[in-house]
Amino acid sequence: VARALELVGERWTLLIVRDALLGTTRFDAFLASLGLARNVLTDRLGGLVEHGIFERVPYRQRPLRHEYRLTAMGRDLVGVVIPLMEWGDRYLAGDAGPPRVAEHVDCGGHVVSQFVCERCGRPVPNTEVTTSPAGQSPAGQN
Amino acid sequence: VARALELVGERWTLLIVRDALLGTTRFDAFLASLGLARNVLTDRLGGLVEHGIFERVPYRQRPLRHEYRLTAMGRDLVGVVIPLMEWGDRYLAGDAGPPRVAEHVDCGGHVVSQFVCERCGRPVPNTEVTTSPAGQSPAGQN
Repeated sequence: VARALELVGERWTLLIVRDALLGTTRFDAFLASLGLARNVLTDRLGGLVEHGIFERVPYRQRPLRHEYRLTAMGRDLVGVVIPLMEWGDRYLAGDAGPPRVAEHVDCGGHVVSQFVCERCGRPVPNTEVTTSPAGQSPAGQN
Repeated sequence: VARALELVGERWTLLIVRDALLGTTRFDAFLASLGLARNVLTDRLGGLVEHGIFERVPYRQRPLRHEYRLTAMGRDLVGVVIPLMEWGDRYLAGDAGPPRVAEHVDCGGHVVSQFVCERCGRPVPNTEVTTSPAGQSPAGQN
């Protein structure tokens, strides 16, 4: 968790990733959406490229222009962004309801995140999830 | 997502929540675990109490001492912390493997987070999750 937070544990990072998941690729589009200073966005995007979350890809040759595309590693942060969105909707959304909903690309159905137990196969409520040091499970399952 | 990140989008916040999920309640224990400055931890914990993620509860009367306990809202962040841990394990863990694993309290089995479609009932890979504005689903499902 600590190492993951070194990469994504800064408010702008997950907001940039959120915008990218919504289809944003160009510097000026991130800038307009996020309303943060140009130099801060440059720094952030540079760091995210360096850490393998985005790749910088030319989209025009003359003059040379680049866009920012999520790598597979970056796109996989949807597994963190959606649970964060759900948590916010549950506790912070207020009367207006959630601004966006998660959807299954194939069938258009509403998608929710949940925990599943690989041993008993059942969905596991958040209140029944704990962690233990790897290889030292109290039940000896690892 | 933006509102949720105003609360939890700071590296220390989710690290404090992680420690609390592991059972930490006392100021000095958070301090020892996180290695951040005393005044910064005081500010952070105060903000988290103010926003309803922790509650400050007396555990001794003379002298009066308090501990910090996660509220239901705070404990529910396990739904964000575990996916973040999984993402970190997938891309950042290296050869040593994951330091901790998520477990089902009831049966001791390994717990994983996944997306499920409420319409077709199937597990949904991260690559098949999108979002749309609420009430404007392309498939008209909301």
